[in-house]
Amino acid sequence: MELNQIYAPVQADLLKVRDKIQSISRIDNDWLAAQLSYLVKETGKALRPALTLLSGKSFKYNLAYLLPMSVSVELMHTATLVHDDAIDNASTRRGQATINSIWGDEIAILMGDYLFAKAGEFVSDTQTPRVIKLFSQTLGIISSGEIGQFRGAFYLDRNREHYFRRIYSKTASLFSLSTQSGAILSKAPEESVAVMKEYGDNLGIAFQIVDDILDFTSTEEIMGKPVGSDLTQGTLTLPAILLAERYPADNPVQRMFETRDNKYVAQAIDMVRNLDIINECYKTASGYCQQACRNLGLLPDTPGRQALYDLAEFVVEREL
Amino acid sequence: MELNQIYAPVQADLLKVRDKIQSISRIDNDWLAAQLSYLVKETGKALRPALTLLSGKSFKYNLAYLLPMSVSVELMHTATLVHDDAIDNASTRRGQATINSIWGDEIAILMGDYLFAKAGEFVSDTQTPRVIKLFSQTLGIISSGEIGQFRGAFYLDRNREHYFRRIYSKTASLFSLSTQSGAILSKAPEESVAVMKEYGDNLGIAFQIVDDILDFTSTEEIMGKPVGSDLTQGTLTLPAILLAERYPADNPVQRMFETRDNKYVAQAIDMVRNLDIINECYKTASGYCQQACRNLGLLPDTPGRQALYDLAEFVVEREL
Repeated sequence: MELNQIYAPVQADLLKVRDKIQSISRIDNDWLAAQLSYLVKETGKALRPALTLLSGKSFKYNLAYLLPMSVSVELMHTATLVHDDAIDNASTRRGQATINSIWGDEIAILMGDYLFAKAGEFVSDTQTPRVIKLFSQTLGIISSGEIGQFRGAFYLDRNREHYFRRIYSKTASLFSLSTQSGAILSKAPEESVAVMKEYGDNLGIAFQIVDDILDFTSTEEIMGKPVGSDLTQGTLTLPAILLAERYPADNPVQRMFETRDNKYVAQAIDMVRNLDIINECYKTASGYCQQACRNLGLLPDTPGRQALYDLAEFVVEREL
Repeated sequence: MELNQIYAPVQADLLKVRDKIQSISRIDNDWLAAQLSYLVKETGKALRPALTLLSGKSFKYNLAYLLPMSVSVELMHTATLVHDDAIDNASTRRGQATINSIWGDEIAILMGDYLFAKAGEFVSDTQTPRVIKLFSQTLGIISSGEIGQFRGAFYLDRNREHYFRRIYSKTASLFSLSTQSGAILSKAPEESVAVMKEYGDNLGIAFQIVDDILDFTSTEEIMGKPVGSDLTQGTLTLPAILLAERYPADNPVQRMFETRDNKYVAQAIDMVRNLDIINECYKTASGYCQQACRNLGLLPDTPGRQALYDLAEFVVEREL
């Protein structure tokens, strides 16, 4: 199923979200306006805003609250990407040059901060301290998770638990902020808020596993950034963990981390592609998607709920 | 007057603010806990929390709201300093090594983000969307102001208006967030909130002018960072503007900006100290303090109001 079919119940409102996001570039400061416009012109899959809106669709959907919330989760996401790219020295993202590569790390730091501020402004427009607090807590989880990832770079730890904790912080926490806040702002009963949190957490983990698979199996053309970039950054993802587990005595992941010689990245990619590691990773991702959907049956049967089921399938099948 | 005398009406609560700030280092992650504890062990003058509490003292003072607000303005301030130090490649702050100098820019970026998140959590505990929005707007003003400062570095623009706009963004906006939020959270009437905003804006500008003076007249021992660091960073402050105005044809500020040779910083410091430029800067700062106090007479006559008068004097007389 295509993403725009899945998004059908909220498609019109997603356009409003996009307009609102792009409106942040309408400011007096011409230079800043141009940068912001560059940053928000490609909103990608807009998964996080879609999750907020779709989550609200099963309850008392009220765009006055859901719109600023959807904008804020996407802007928080964009802000973290701007900072991550500076940290990783990344030169391209979504097929276009990164802020740090054009203007340097200093501007990337400040631009990220500015986007956090805008995200904070929008979330305050929900007038709902509970989701505002969740928003800030999520930023705390993401940044402390990134600190762990950066400090653990090039450290060969085959512990899967460590991997899952990291991708929860990095990705799933913002997915579940999106789904939970959608439910809270739509006056969902507490049990449903909990279901939405579980859905978001599990969907986010599945999404990140697939992201980590695609970093081995996709192409630079499709992804808009180089393949194998996780290994190059010293980040141990599930496919690499499985490869290292198969060949504990000697494997290109270990060699890459020890020597930091990029030739081992290409080797690792080849081996991961040619073994059945990819299948095993997909099986794990599917397991999380099933877990995500497990309790959706407790929610009212609405087009929003159906879209969440479909989205869980999409997340595993996607190529980008 | 000493700062602790001025703070008397809120001294006990300022200790609670300090404890609460330090409590952010009580987390499971040992490494992060150690860094946070290092960052918050020196709270400096705690001017911003004091402004929030003192501002509340003239109205329905309620520590349940004022405590998280005071914590959040101080944490936002700390977060911006962590990012600024990374941007400026600063090696010391408040007499201790900066995060970027010990751990690198990557950790400084993430640590700043984490502190913004914590600040956001505390401000959400005020349960007051209006101050939460002001909080985010202030972060937007600060970061866009820093973008302007960074982009304008080493650009010799003698326009004072530009200088005052920059120090409003950089410093005064957070001072007036502190005073305004203190008033709002204490159910002050709107006219009084406006008086507090005006007070904070003007006090902040005076404070920054004095900071900029001290960068010429103080010593590294007192300041805990090198003198002349503004010129070294290419930042044009009021003393430097006045020096350049006196000698439009040729002056060490211009030479410094053109050549980026640090020997001109020492020359500029000497000239600023030996001319009556310092007096003129102090006169300007005092003018802003008078402006800050102008409407305080409209507030109820409380020990809090008296402290705000005294603080305006302190800001100009301080040596650190």
